[in-house]
Order: sequence, then C-alpha cells, then structure tokens
Amino acid sequence: MGNYENMGPSKIRELIRHQEITGPTAGMSKGYTQANLVILKKEHAFDFLLFCQRNPKPCPLLDVTEPGSPVPAMIASDADIRKDIPKYRIYRDGVFTEEVTDITDYWEDDMVGFLLGCSFTFETPLLESGIPIRHIEENCNVPMYKTNIQCNKAGIFEGPTVVSMRPMSPEDAIRAVQITSRFPAVHGAPIHIGDPSQIGIADISKPDFGDAVTLKDGEVPVFWACGVTPQAVAMESKPAIMITHAPGCMFISDIKDEKLSVL
Amino acid sequence: MGNYENMGPSKIRELIRHQEITGPTAGMSKGYTQANLVILKKEHAFDFLLFCQRNPKPCPLLDVTEPGSPVPAMIASDADIRKDIPKYRIYRDGVFTEEVTDITDYWEDDMVGFLLGCSFTFETPLLESGIPIRHIEENCNVPMYKTNIQCNKAGIFEGPTVVSMRPMSPEDAIRAVQITSRFPAVHGAPIHIGDPSQIGIADISKPDFGDAVTLKDGEVPVFWACGVTPQAVAMESKPAIMITHAPGCMFISDIKDEKLSVL
Repeated sequence: MGNYENMGPSKIRELIRHQEITGPTAGMSKGYTQANLVILKKEHAFDFLLFCQRNPKPCPLLDVTEPGSPVPAMIASDADIRKDIPKYRIYRDGVFTEEVTDITDYWEDDMVGFLLGCSFTFETPLLESGIPIRHIEENCNVPMYKTNIQCNKAGIFEGPTVVSMRPMSPEDAIRAVQITSRFPAVHGAPIHIGDPSQIGIADISKPDFGDAVTLKDGEVPVFWACGVTPQAVAMESKPAIMITHAPGCMFISDIKDEKLSVL
Repeated sequence: MGNYENMGPSKIRELIRHQEITGPTAGMSKGYTQANLVILKKEHAFDFLLFCQRNPKPCPLLDVTEPGSPVPAMIASDADIRKDIPKYRIYRDGVFTEEVTDITDYWEDDMVGFLLGCSFTFETPLLESGIPIRHIEENCNVPMYKTNIQCNKAGIFEGPTVVSMRPMSPEDAIRAVQITSRFPAVHGAPIHIGDPSQIGIADISKPDFGDAVTLKDGEVPVFWACGVTPQAVAMESKPAIMITHAPGCMFISDIKDEKLSVL
C-alpha cells in the first residue's frame, strides 16, 4: 500500500483496469479526489441530475458523463468508468444481483455515469489540522444513519438524507465546521451537531450502514450529509438497471483534493 | 423605489404579477437573491442542466422547475415563473422575436425553467465592505465581455465564457476575492485579475454587453464569470423556442443573499 499511496491516479487506474487491484481504494493516490459512482439509463438521467442539483450536500456531483460515453472528461479524461473501478455492483429493479470487476458487458449506449464526491476529501484536511477521526483510529467503516431529513424530490427520486457521523470534542467540532465549509463540492459543512434524536436517529450505537464507533465523555457527534444518500434513493426507485461502485472501491480521479476548496 | 427596497419578495412578485411593476428590479427587496431565467423545452433540459453542472461558475443554478411546472419550489414556493418577472424575451430558433410581460400563453406542458444566480448577490457584501463598484457609481450597466475561455461542452450546448468586469485597487481586489469566494452559488471568486488580453479581450473600453466604465490609474480590472453565459450559449444552439427574462428584469426569490454564503 505504501507504494500505491504515492502512485499517480492514472497508474493506479491502469492497475485496476488490468485487475491487479480489485479491492478498496482508501489511501491510494494520496491527495487525489476519490468518487462514488452511479450509472443509470438516459431515461432516468434528467431526474437524477435534478435530484443531485436540488440536494447538493448529500449529492455533490463531480462529473456526469455524456450519454453513452464511459469517459469522465472533467475529472479524468483518459479513464473508462466501465473498467477503472476495482469492483462494481449491479442492481436490477432495485435488487443487488451481482458483483463484477468490469462492466463492459453491461454497458448500454444510453447509459450515463454520475461521479459524486466523497468524505475522503475532507477527512485529509481534518487529520492535517490534528483532528482525530474515530473510525480511522478504530480501523472500521464510518457509521452512517438514515435521518428524518427528507431530500428535495425530483421526478421519481425521493427519500431521506443519510448522514455520516464523527465524534469530536466541541473545539474540534468548531474547527471542523470551518474546514469542511471550504469544501462545498464534497458535502461541505456538517448538517447537524449534537442530539441525534433531533434528526430522527433513535440509537447512535446502531448505525444503518457502516460500523458503530466509540463516543467518549465530553464529545459531541458531528453529522455530515453522506454520499450513500443518492445510491439509496436511486435504489428505492427501482430502476430496471443501476450500476454502482462496491463499498470502499472508489473511482480515483485526476483532481487534487485541494482544488475542490473554495478558500 | 424606497418603498420597493424594503418590501418583501412575495409582495413585489404580486405587484409584478398584476403588472404594477414592469421594469428593472435592481434594488427591490433588499437582501433577497434575484435570479436570471432561462426556459427551454424538456428535450433540451438534460443537456442544459448538464451544461450548468459542468460550468458552475458562469451557470450557478439556484433552482430548476419540474418539467411542466411553473413553480420554482426551492426558492419561492408560491411563485409562478410565467407571470412573476416584469418583462420576458421570446427567442425562436435563436432569434429574439418579442418582449412580453406575461408568458402564460407561451407556456407548454414540457417546459423547464432554470433560475440562475446573478452578481447582485455578491455586490451587496462588496459594497458593505466599503469596496466601491464603478458601474453603480457611474449609474450604468456592468461591462461584460466574451472571452477565449471555452465552457465545458454538454450535448448541443457550447460556447465561450462571458465575464463581467469591476475595476478595483489591488487591495480591494484581494478583499473581493475573499468575499466572493464565500458565494460559490453565485459565480464565486473572480476568474481573472489584470491583463484583459490574457483572456482574449482586445479592448477593455469596448464591452460586448453592458456599458464601458472608467478604469482609474492604479486600478486593476477584476473579472467574474457572468450569468449571461448560459443565455448566450443557449441562444447560439438555436432551440425552436427559448424564453428568458429581459435584461435587468429579474426574478426575486425568497432566499436571503446571506443564505448562499458557505462561510
């Protein structure tokens, strides 16, 4: 991994394309933005694009491919989203049917790929500011929860906002608001701090996705809108076919994390 | 006007709807965001939405109506974009044909309205920071220029970025970068400072749109991506029908300018 950490995105994508890397991408090509992927057919693309536009905090779009083109031209012009992710999941009528390492055989000429920012991008500057991140310390996945905050509906797409949670001291929480506000293109500032019940979370020790983490005395839970939201919402609308990345197996772009900050 | 300045957006829209206001909206409902309007038929809506997504600086989308619905639900849920703008322009095959005060008779049930942020929103905090704005001092329209900076193409939509220019002292220019960076939803930071020729502007005294303003000794021209870009680009693609607001006659939303800042 030490090797992959300092390898450029184009080289990593080549290894992935040749299936020499088939697992999670966390820590690879340090400093470069990783992205979530959702692929839908053109008939749903306008509604889904509108859904993302209306819900920018959970759905921070980094790139959308031209219908039929597998090239994410804005963020990696030599990439192919059919091959450059280690593992994909296929959903038919909203049901997960198979996991594959290449989706060339599934690709149709009216498919559109949506690449969405993920919290990896803002965790790096948090760590660099000396703010510890619990799920990294505990070596598990970030805890995620369905909330009672409804997304703004668009066409067939609707559903609740999913949030990720990081416990912090109050002073770190304040600093984290400042730091993540600089990154509106990757979820931006938190959407809630403190009492989980105010956003419809009954039991903080039981996340809906990911793993529970320790909440220490004096710490407050800090909640960010999560990129799982658009996938969960798309899934519930049960399109005939939808393809996503497998959890943790992200698309590594040519964009530097720092390029996404507004200040 | 003193009266309109402190009147709420809903009341102003009512006066506009009853054609008691039929002219420019600058200065009305102080502190509330005003928006540019582009209406296209559904067949072009995905491409245009994608164009805006790929070019967020010139095309800062504030709201997109559901196809067929004239209600901009995100920014003014009791409004009707067919009646609540003082003056509209109708373009057929890219050619301006008429100006009207109500577009109910032109509305079709597959039309989509795009509401885009405008620089009025960031001019207020610039003025409040004591930065003089030349075109306001000289009581004319902001100067706008076509540049050699190509927008990212999407479907049928492509063309150059149009910029607006404000001359400033170097120290004001630095402060203006800070202030406008806080507003990524309304053009954000400048895209160029200084030498106009570097972005393809041959003669700063001859704007392509708006009016020329005085550039004083020691001042630098500061250029922001301009909301005229998407209209100009849409016009060049010559859709069978396109409807926009008339220059200066904007849509007044229920959103406070300050709500659009990220910090």
